[in-house]
Amino acid sequence: MSILTEMGQKAKDASVVLAVLSTPKKNEALCHGAEALLAAEKEILSANQMDVEEALASGIKGAFIDRLTLTKTRLQEMAEGLRQVAALDDPVGEVLSMKTMDNGLIIGQKRVPMGVIGIIFEARPNVTADAFGLCLKAGSAVILRGGKEAFRTNQAVVSVFRTAMEEVGLPGDIVQVVPDTSRETANEMMRLNRYLDVLIPRGGAGLIQSVVQNSTVPVIETGVGNCHIFVDETADLDQAVAIVMNAKTQRPGVCNACESLLVHEKISEKFLPMVGKALQEKAVEIRGDEATCALISGSVPAVEEDWATEFTDYIISTRVVANLEEAITHIRKYSTGHSEAILTENYSNAQRFLNEVDAAAVYVNASTRFTDGGQFGFGAEIGISTQKLHARGPMGLKELTTTKYIIYGNGQIRQ
Amino acid sequence: MSILTEMGQKAKDASVVLAVLSTPKKNEALCHGAEALLAAEKEILSANQMDVEEALASGIKGAFIDRLTLTKTRLQEMAEGLRQVAALDDPVGEVLSMKTMDNGLIIGQKRVPMGVIGIIFEARPNVTADAFGLCLKAGSAVILRGGKEAFRTNQAVVSVFRTAMEEVGLPGDIVQVVPDTSRETANEMMRLNRYLDVLIPRGGAGLIQSVVQNSTVPVIETGVGNCHIFVDETADLDQAVAIVMNAKTQRPGVCNACESLLVHEKISEKFLPMVGKALQEKAVEIRGDEATCALISGSVPAVEEDWATEFTDYIISTRVVANLEEAITHIRKYSTGHSEAILTENYSNAQRFLNEVDAAAVYVNASTRFTDGGQFGFGAEIGISTQKLHARGPMGLKELTTTKYIIYGNGQIRQ
Repeated sequence: MSILTEMGQKAKDASVVLAVLSTPKKNEALCHGAEALLAAEKEILSANQMDVEEALASGIKGAFIDRLTLTKTRLQEMAEGLRQVAALDDPVGEVLSMKTMDNGLIIGQKRVPMGVIGIIFEARPNVTADAFGLCLKAGSAVILRGGKEAFRTNQAVVSVFRTAMEEVGLPGDIVQVVPDTSRETANEMMRLNRYLDVLIPRGGAGLIQSVVQNSTVPVIETGVGNCHIFVDETADLDQAVAIVMNAKTQRPGVCNACESLLVHEKISEKFLPMVGKALQEKAVEIRGDEATCALISGSVPAVEEDWATEFTDYIISTRVVANLEEAITHIRKYSTGHSEAILTENYSNAQRFLNEVDAAAVYVNASTRFTDGGQFGFGAEIGISTQKLHARGPMGLKELTTTKYIIYGNGQIRQ
Repeated sequence: MSILTEMGQKAKDASVVLAVLSTPKKNEALCHGAEALLAAEKEILSANQMDVEEALASGIKGAFIDRLTLTKTRLQEMAEGLRQVAALDDPVGEVLSMKTMDNGLIIGQKRVPMGVIGIIFEARPNVTADAFGLCLKAGSAVILRGGKEAFRTNQAVVSVFRTAMEEVGLPGDIVQVVPDTSRETANEMMRLNRYLDVLIPRGGAGLIQSVVQNSTVPVIETGVGNCHIFVDETADLDQAVAIVMNAKTQRPGVCNACESLLVHEKISEKFLPMVGKALQEKAVEIRGDEATCALISGSVPAVEEDWATEFTDYIISTRVVANLEEAITHIRKYSTGHSEAILTENYSNAQRFLNEVDAAAVYVNASTRFTDGGQFGFGAEIGISTQKLHARGPMGLKELTTTKYIIYGNGQIRQ
């Protein structure tokens, strides 16, 4: 039996216990996990330090190291995250509908745990705690496979959780981490259909595509956002500048940041210099079509690829369009189906945009930066789905569950 | 550009029109499709006759030929099916929730069409009409790939629908059929992620597994049902015989038929001869454990494989268990997660079975044969999902849709 098959079997066994666990017991486990995390500060930070040193020695630097590095504060945030999940409503057990059929059968649809969830992620150790907490509250066991640069950290964190679970009388196998970071093991995990009910990749476009291409386990595709803002003829232009600036520069590295700006030609002469000045003051590079370049000095000509690129940086592509139709057609062509916004005072255009643009989240007169589980009131999120199956948009606890039909009869047979 | 890429692009374009189509227009299209089907009886039956003759000539026979064969009556049933879909509620546009956040953003979750749905199926020409009707009502374009034995029939049926759609002013590309039945084309279809939002295989276990193993497009796994009935110590034994007989013999070839019978040891001496007699009168072969074989003369010893087999035939595996726990453990080991039933008068055992058995549908005191879109009141079904992602159990129109978030703002930016 391979290591992963064995892990799968253990997770399945643990999931049976989890599936019928009471909410108070889950919350106790989460809070105890949080305490254990803080109590193990020394071991975890020391494991993390080794990971960071090895990464630095191998020439890795910058934002990657920042994401990899744990500090006392970050550990406290991870623990606080677990406590917040404990405070959320338990999604399991909710009966979504129940009706009595003509033959007397009572048919209900009930929210139940997934079973076993797989998470493949990169070198962000906080994902370990997030995923453990959300899966536990949703009643599922989790198998984690993190990036190789965070290997020691993930092992240390999961080991703490496993012991903590046993201390409250639960199986440690609620949470397991894949014990090596080889490609072979990752590929085996992606084909563990017998045990994994769903696989969620969390990370960059490369990781996500690799999982989508190789997994036979059902995948929820998360993340890539080439988000557009269309500034219509009737938009409030000051408000539009504020929204574009927020969507582009408040946190340019995230998937709900704006990457592309479309401007109605009737206001382009007034609006583009306004927004251009504001963007350039924040050192945003503007890659524009001909009309944009004529109106914003210092902007550079966009090439075809720019329209399709998620920059996640201080860069924005900008184009003047003749009307709403042209804006929608452009978005249809280049959108990744994440978040799209129209800024307008025209009622019909707002409604048409909401109806006709096909994305997880469509906005009127607001920043695309709101596409987020916390902002949507879910309390926490495991990622943002850009696929249409199962979950679309921010995924909270409910999206980590499934349903089953429960049928109460009194002897019914089918005619 | 390959044929499938071209089909994908055409389907995507057609889906844009479909996505905003009014309910009356969809219903008009469905009813016109039904009329067109009847008007084309001659061409369709003649194409079907060629398919049937070729199949017979190649040595195919029995139930396969029966499923492949269209008659005037079956064509009428297909047309009637389309009219029934027209009569169903339109799932598109329903707002599942809408709330105002503290910052004034109004966030709603709205049911919207999938976009483009792929269906891979075997040589059952009625699936062509079913899938067309359900996808159209759910607002999605469909690309069909049927079994090679029904190739001419499917071409003829889809051609009729395409013309009918154009006659009511809609794009014919709402429905397309893959123009060859090669394995290469099927494989390409399974990797058409850019255009297909979901792929649904309809057919036997071999087809389904092939799609699950090879598809990078999100799949909804349908069908295989190794369904159990556990007759508890306190069951009403006459009722139990009636339910087991119904679940096993009313239509043994379908996925919600009972394949395995578990009997509490305390009633086995009384119940097994009763049910054995009834089963044998209907020529059902009983493959039993030692206890069963001792109590039912004419039963044969079960081998390990029998517990895991979906017979879809007049065969049932039968085992005596010590208690509810042993029954649940057996089901956990061999279940395909389709439909499972307990027959009992014990309240706690009924509740435990409903909670602890992990399947799409769990029953108390009723036949497993009710797991069906029609019986559940959905009006129609595209299949029965045995996976946990997106849809579980019978899939009606709602399960062929997705959602999007619509957000109404008045200038909100994220802090």
